[in-house]
Amino acid sequence: MKTQQNLRVIPLGGLGEVGRNMMLLEYQGKILIIDMGLRMPGEDMPGIDYIIPNISCLKEKRKNVLGVVFTHGHYDHIGAVPYLLEKIWHPNLELHASPLTRGIILRRQEDFANQPPLHINEVRNGSKIKMGPYKIEFFRQNHNIPDNLGLFIETPLGNILHTSDFKFDPTPINDLPTDFAKLRRFAKRGIMLLLSDSTGAEEENHSLSEKTIEKNLDEIFHKAQGRIIAATFASLINRIQQIITISEKYGRKVVVEGYSMKTNVEISKVLGYIKTKKGTLINGKEAANYPDSKISILCTGAQGEGSAVLMRIAQKDHPYLRLKKGDTVILSSSVIPGNERAVQNLKDDILRQGCHVFHYKMMDIHAGGHAQQEELKEMLKIMEPKFFMPIHGQYSMLVSHAEIAEDLGMQEKDIVVAENGQIINLTSKKIEVEKTAVPSNYVMVDGLGIGDVGEVVLRDRQMLSRDGMFVIVVVVDKQTGKVKGSPDIISRGFVYLRESKDLLRDTRRKVVEIIHHATGSGGAVNWSYIKDEIRNKIGQFFYTRTQRRPMILPVVIEV
Amino acid sequence: MKTQQNLRVIPLGGLGEVGRNMMLLEYQGKILIIDMGLRMPGEDMPGIDYIIPNISCLKEKRKNVLGVVFTHGHYDHIGAVPYLLEKIWHPNLELHASPLTRGIILRRQEDFANQPPLHINEVRNGSKIKMGPYKIEFFRQNHNIPDNLGLFIETPLGNILHTSDFKFDPTPINDLPTDFAKLRRFAKRGIMLLLSDSTGAEEENHSLSEKTIEKNLDEIFHKAQGRIIAATFASLINRIQQIITISEKYGRKVVVEGYSMKTNVEISKVLGYIKTKKGTLINGKEAANYPDSKISILCTGAQGEGSAVLMRIAQKDHPYLRLKKGDTVILSSSVIPGNERAVQNLKDDILRQGCHVFHYKMMDIHAGGHAQQEELKEMLKIMEPKFFMPIHGQYSMLVSHAEIAEDLGMQEKDIVVAENGQIINLTSKKIEVEKTAVPSNYVMVDGLGIGDVGEVVLRDRQMLSRDGMFVIVVVVDKQTGKVKGSPDIISRGFVYLRESKDLLRDTRRKVVEIIHHATGSGGAVNWSYIKDEIRNKIGQFFYTRTQRRPMILPVVIEV
Repeated sequence: MKTQQNLRVIPLGGLGEVGRNMMLLEYQGKILIIDMGLRMPGEDMPGIDYIIPNISCLKEKRKNVLGVVFTHGHYDHIGAVPYLLEKIWHPNLELHASPLTRGIILRRQEDFANQPPLHINEVRNGSKIKMGPYKIEFFRQNHNIPDNLGLFIETPLGNILHTSDFKFDPTPINDLPTDFAKLRRFAKRGIMLLLSDSTGAEEENHSLSEKTIEKNLDEIFHKAQGRIIAATFASLINRIQQIITISEKYGRKVVVEGYSMKTNVEISKVLGYIKTKKGTLINGKEAANYPDSKISILCTGAQGEGSAVLMRIAQKDHPYLRLKKGDTVILSSSVIPGNERAVQNLKDDILRQGCHVFHYKMMDIHAGGHAQQEELKEMLKIMEPKFFMPIHGQYSMLVSHAEIAEDLGMQEKDIVVAENGQIINLTSKKIEVEKTAVPSNYVMVDGLGIGDVGEVVLRDRQMLSRDGMFVIVVVVDKQTGKVKGSPDIISRGFVYLRESKDLLRDTRRKVVEIIHHATGSGGAVNWSYIKDEIRNKIGQFFYTRTQRRPMILPVVIEV
Repeated sequence: MKTQQNLRVIPLGGLGEVGRNMMLLEYQGKILIIDMGLRMPGEDMPGIDYIIPNISCLKEKRKNVLGVVFTHGHYDHIGAVPYLLEKIWHPNLELHASPLTRGIILRRQEDFANQPPLHINEVRNGSKIKMGPYKIEFFRQNHNIPDNLGLFIETPLGNILHTSDFKFDPTPINDLPTDFAKLRRFAKRGIMLLLSDSTGAEEENHSLSEKTIEKNLDEIFHKAQGRIIAATFASLINRIQQIITISEKYGRKVVVEGYSMKTNVEISKVLGYIKTKKGTLINGKEAANYPDSKISILCTGAQGEGSAVLMRIAQKDHPYLRLKKGDTVILSSSVIPGNERAVQNLKDDILRQGCHVFHYKMMDIHAGGHAQQEELKEMLKIMEPKFFMPIHGQYSMLVSHAEIAEDLGMQEKDIVVAENGQIINLTSKKIEVEKTAVPSNYVMVDGLGIGDVGEVVLRDRQMLSRDGMFVIVVVVDKQTGKVKGSPDIISRGFVYLRESKDLLRDTRRKVVEIIHHATGSGGAVNWSYIKDEIRNKIGQFFYTRTQRRPMILPVVIEV
């Protein structure tokens, strides 16, 4: 990329997907990064821990990166920091985040060894900073975690407004209502480009206010006789505060269970984002000293995650917590696509133990943190941007958001539905997608490996999981080409070996035949040909006998 | 089980799950079977094709089985026939099904080799049959496939009403509206036990009429300029008929694509359940002779299934169909839990190619075939059963259905929320669950294997899929105990071998060390101990270096 007079916007993640948000602005070679998030893998990526953005386009340019601004403390906006930051780090790199976001980033760094020390500058509503050609003014935006900041960015070409994840909430919890006057003041200064959250663009009407949720939760608390076990995401700080506040109202002590939940409550308490009365929080063992009707348990696991606290409680796997008849269990988070089956099984397990279950589908006990169609319209109407680019969300959400803008009268040419890796080129007159893109494929994190698991390894894992594998070890006499003894067989995930003696015997015989046939005529022995023969013929044999296709791995050892 | 004076109801599948419906009635040793369904596996069961009921409790009793009655032609009610029927077959076994159900069962048998010839007696609305102590009267019930039959069963103890899957539809497509008068006549004869479909028990209000769907589909057809591609289940015969009828209205020819869709349309046409005008159905290649605005394509794939027609079209993998800008794609089936992510990706792929997408979430273009809360209430009110047992559905659905009955005034003791395998014992005075249950665990079908894949094989598949496997082949001199040459390594799904040369070299060295250490002291060599050592120490080594835990399989060959 040459130095250019235009402004470039380069999304590296979060477009056409939910999660892994990261975006670059580039003006005359000076790069500003917004967010560095991760995303959870799908079922088609077994063994993978996280997916993070590909930042190879920054390889030769680390010196050009002025800094990173973080909008809020959710992992899809900050989770890739321990993996990516060291790759672009230099002593002058600036990092900016709100106090809570900063706290969460720093706390997470402690879980990783060998990280560079991070100096993160605290910014808050109204803070103004200048980095190279960018002047940034931070403003608070309602979401479901406190301290969420939108960005008003002045550039030499014009102003950019980045909404962060947001919703308009006239009656939020632990937070101030949306400051529309401020948004209008930004609009008055002229918005060249609006970058706006699309996660809720397919949902009609207006997102629920946290106030509504509180009313419904209160109703459940009002009726509950036994313990209340409330499961939600550890990152939904607002929901956690609500459960604590309502528990206090009904004289319940609160037990916080699970590493991530405890950590987040701790940070938020220290920074003043979660407020509790003295004595409200007790530990799990103290709970035995109170009647069931005076206990709430806050934990993770509303998604049916195998290792989360609620799952372990439901499956009688938790060190000291068990469900009791009469307990009330609240699952207060919407189900992430792909987790439906796990959540259903969890609900069933809880019901089988005689508990009451409340799920966000039955009652409004979960509000998404994202603006829905009416709010997105309002944001567009306030900003009246010259150009519009929907961000954050599946492709269908970006398209819906673009359609909203068109319905409001924006012209198609002024709207860009972009994809990760595309370079969006802006002059004050037009917005365009450049022909060449930067790499933006998935970088997979698996244990300590970052990006070392690629297509090949993943395809092997998928294949192994379908029909297992079958290793055949043959020892062959170097002189005679004859098989010595009986081939060794190691197989997993294919058939139950103890009940497949006939199949194994026939397989051994076939392997010996194949080798004898191939080596019988004398002359040079082509082992790679023989291995192919074993793979093909034994593969065919297995398919005929079982209609399964295990991965076949022949090993020939000459002695 | 001894001969008993009581009546036993034994669900073998379909309770606490969606799918795999099968139930036994037993009176004085005489057994009647209702349905024989299959269920699709979850993501935690890689490689498995289907899950079917466990019928081991019938092993010693095949002579006692009088017959099987099938309620309708969906695979969750008939799909296990090719796997299970031969195990209980005897010359006097009676099979009863409606014409369409019978047609689908017989057509499917053709796909399986070595099946016994099936003689299925045709029954329809009003048919009465007698099998031993059971007198059965069949009555039509609305659903989303024609020819669905409920069962009114007279037994010496009292009458049982089995609803089949059902909904009340005052304005169905290609079918008569619900015959409430008939239901009331059954009720007048006294219902001892009601067995009622619970699939919709968590949904409020009344299910949508097929008429509403038709109106919404019509609107889409009215606006569409290009081709219309409508994806649904091959078994949703009613939906298929609707698409054909509306296509005819708008002068569109219809291409039916995909094996299962073609087969079902064929059977249904032959039996008169799908009606088309002459010339409406054309084959895929003829479509080129018509303008896009005169073509509809009916296909499978609304669930984002990898191998279905719509997926292949969207991924440019279909032999002759490609998406075009301006096409309208209709996904007309609700998403099966677990498929959400696949459906989202499919939608995105279609949108990227410039097509319009209509999904049931955006418009009512899919109606579930199952009665919702208001209809379930109505059924209970009409029948006024002495005892009630919710059937068909996840445990949470059965619980909801039981709560509906309690709200209507039924006593808890007269309602049984049962699980698969439980034996429900009825006298004319009471209903009880017996203490001992029959086996009802999953029987997995994988290729030609039925039930041979168990916990062990499945666990191996899951483990292989997470971090792959690592086979170490060591050749050892029998005399000296020394390792000959360098150990052979075969690994898949763990790391990318070409980029892990250091790791492999270190591993080889470590393996040789472990063996030398263990064999160095002379004396008898315990190879199973050495293999354990390799597994443990190399496992630990890999975890330290990669934080992954591949399956480690050491092979020692003595020469």
